[in-house]
Amino acid sequence: MTLPRDHRGQTRALARSMEVVGERWTPLIPRDALYGGRRFGEFAAHPGVPRAVLTDRLAALTGAGVLARRPGTGTGRREVHGLTPRGVALCPAVRALTAWGEGFHAAEGGPRRVFPHARDEAPLAPDGRCTGCGAAVPVQDVLVAPGPGLAAPAPDDDPVTAALARPHRLLTPLFTTAPPGRLTKGSSR
Amino acid sequence: MTLPRDHRGQTRALARSMEVVGERWTPLIPRDALYGGRRFGEFAAHPGVPRAVLTDRLAALTGAGVLARRPGTGTGRREVHGLTPRGVALCPAVRALTAWGEGFHAAEGGPRRVFPHARDEAPLAPDGRCTGCGAAVPVQDVLVAPGPGLAAPAPDDDPVTAALARPHRLLTPLFTTAPPGRLTKGSSR
Repeated sequence: MTLPRDHRGQTRALARSMEVVGERWTPLIPRDALYGGRRFGEFAAHPGVPRAVLTDRLAALTGAGVLARRPGTGTGRREVHGLTPRGVALCPAVRALTAWGEGFHAAEGGPRRVFPHARDEAPLAPDGRCTGCGAAVPVQDVLVAPGPGLAAPAPDDDPVTAALARPHRLLTPLFTTAPPGRLTKGSSR
Repeated sequence: MTLPRDHRGQTRALARSMEVVGERWTPLIPRDALYGGRRFGEFAAHPGVPRAVLTDRLAALTGAGVLARRPGTGTGRREVHGLTPRGVALCPAVRALTAWGEGFHAAEGGPRRVFPHARDEAPLAPDGRCTGCGAAVPVQDVLVAPGPGLAAPAPDDDPVTAALARPHRLLTPLFTTAPPGRLTKGSSR
């Protein structure tokens, strides 16, 4: 068929975005990095994501300039992946997709995580502004905290679950060294 | 490996969103519906999307409650797909993903489409507010208009390209009857 000229070979912003984050599982990785995940074992904590797929997606996101790889520090010394400025700029899209998912499942106990403004702890509006002070809040001043839909903490929580359940600023690493115990063991490649 | 309890079997909003719109090509369809596309041939106007894939994606989005199917009217009488309220609610996510794609390619001539507020024609800020009057602008009051990166109109433009190049409100159908000529012919299934 005759393709409309408008769509032929021209740059289309959404198509470009989807080339980077449009694969299954891929957007969960920048989301986890936003929450403070840095190590392979921390990103691997999704039900059903095959480890080979995760390796592939980390490489693709690094190649696309969304993540940057750095050698690890501390006792674990595992390689870490952090968000670049380009990756941090994905935050509004990740927030909008997450809000869309939440918006149609309000009956399930509410959101699992909430994102208040660190300064006054007022919730953010869907447009990213603080409902308390009205400021457009930069990513690093947003807290991620347990919401009503998150299961209560349990003594046998693994280190990642326990760390995610403590309110902390976005982009702050969950662990300054590799997490102890099971996860470190489980995440060796 | 031991999966963190937090990630096991619980509802995760972003993962749910990506189950619906995380397949290649899929988000382009709600985007096109936002621009006023309604018929198969109008959605088929992407380079490289196989028609079988498009059929599959339209069915998946309809099953997920993003699109609703209605019988067509007018001379063409082809079946049309329109956005449901759930589909319209995807708009901020589509806008954020598009803005992210644009944000790193500013040297290519600028955005192909711009989205001013219909009332005062002032551009919208990334958070969806009007930079002129400050209002949070509802989707149906947003214009889609040619941006600096869009090729100039040509006399041999197909009907979809020509219709997209005319400023019009989001969600307003591009055609009230099936478009004439080439496209109608090309889009028969």
